[in-house]
Amino acid sequence: MIDVGSIMNCMLKKAIVLLSGGQDSATCLAIAKQKFEDIHCICFDYGQRHRIEIECSKALAKRANSTFECIDITFVKHLSQSALVNETIEIKDTANRLPNTFVPGRNALFLTLASMIAYEKKCTTIFTGVCQTDYSGYPDCRQDFINSQQQTMSLALDSSMKIETPLMYLTKKETVLIMQKLGLLEWYKDTHTCYEGARPACGKCPACLLRLKGFQQAGIKDALSYIAE
Amino acid sequence: MIDVGSIMNCMLKKAIVLLSGGQDSATCLAIAKQKFEDIHCICFDYGQRHRIEIECSKALAKRANSTFECIDITFVKHLSQSALVNETIEIKDTANRLPNTFVPGRNALFLTLASMIAYEKKCTTIFTGVCQTDYSGYPDCRQDFINSQQQTMSLALDSSMKIETPLMYLTKKETVLIMQKLGLLEWYKDTHTCYEGARPACGKCPACLLRLKGFQQAGIKDALSYIAE
Repeated sequence: MIDVGSIMNCMLKKAIVLLSGGQDSATCLAIAKQKFEDIHCICFDYGQRHRIEIECSKALAKRANSTFECIDITFVKHLSQSALVNETIEIKDTANRLPNTFVPGRNALFLTLASMIAYEKKCTTIFTGVCQTDYSGYPDCRQDFINSQQQTMSLALDSSMKIETPLMYLTKKETVLIMQKLGLLEWYKDTHTCYEGARPACGKCPACLLRLKGFQQAGIKDALSYIAE
Repeated sequence: MIDVGSIMNCMLKKAIVLLSGGQDSATCLAIAKQKFEDIHCICFDYGQRHRIEIECSKALAKRANSTFECIDITFVKHLSQSALVNETIEIKDTANRLPNTFVPGRNALFLTLASMIAYEKKCTTIFTGVCQTDYSGYPDCRQDFINSQQQTMSLALDSSMKIETPLMYLTKKETVLIMQKLGLLEWYKDTHTCYEGARPACGKCPACLLRLKGFQQAGIKDALSYIAE
């Protein structure tokens, strides 16, 4: 006789976590780890020019005692002219238009593939660290997109799929405080934020400055090393 | 000064058509060709065991004087245990459960990538030959999925995306009659349906039988060659 309760319990204990190697995905993994026993981490190799993001993702999965896979989707390089995947275009940050690091539809692709993997693993929950608070022109970081993507994959797979976004409405300060509360601030050593791809981080680019501001507001020192230190 | 009317006109004349090399995608391409001057055809190499599907897609694009690209997404082989991408599993057709040729989420992946390409090409229309009429357990062939996918990609790209499904409610007989009306029945020579991957087609597998039934009901001879002939 099949023990339905045991099956349900088993399914609820398994989750997929998407990692980018950034501060938010580290925090997202830490939160998922509190709720689910069995975590499978996924990162995507889409030809991003900072390969260190993939190394950080792997290191974070190890810290969480999770399984890890990096999926090669470098073919997307040919789909997009975005600066994030093209060495010849200078990265710029602008307040008034989409930053040219934008790979159109990237999160939709990540979440579609993650849902396909989740389905194969008989898992119904996916965590992603997307955050609307720092919203800087990325439409596929907004909750209305996430809700729609969740419904689309549930219909495509004819199986309920839940996309959890625990950081959606948190500030950088709040995510740092969560990690402090969880006693996992050390995990931030294995994250990468710097636009310049520098290690130690440059501490001067817009991404580093935004990150450092969050730590400053939380009154906590970043575990990551910076050049200026 | 920018001529807005000219830009709009240009955009409406461009469409993406997804090809699988099957009878429905050939018909879908023929219909799209009536409405749009500039067609870009896409097929996906996801490691399907019948490579002839890709050759047929290419030949169909040529017949339509369209540009063509085949996108290598063979990494999906590692995401799924489906018979369609695994030589070691025998293909079976059953009435009561999902056929084991089902690659979960496949259409969602195809349409996500097609939307990303459409966005890069400043094109807002994608045609796909999915058909709910022969619905045999594929949830990602239903109109409610298509509607949701369309909304998801419009949100992800922050740009309206239209997914056209001209065959959704047509029978096989009706699609054949459309091609007759368009004078393009010859295009069916460059299509592939047979589950056995045979060329000429076996004429006996469930896929061949369904195809032949449509032609019989339309009172038209299939341009494709069959072994039994």
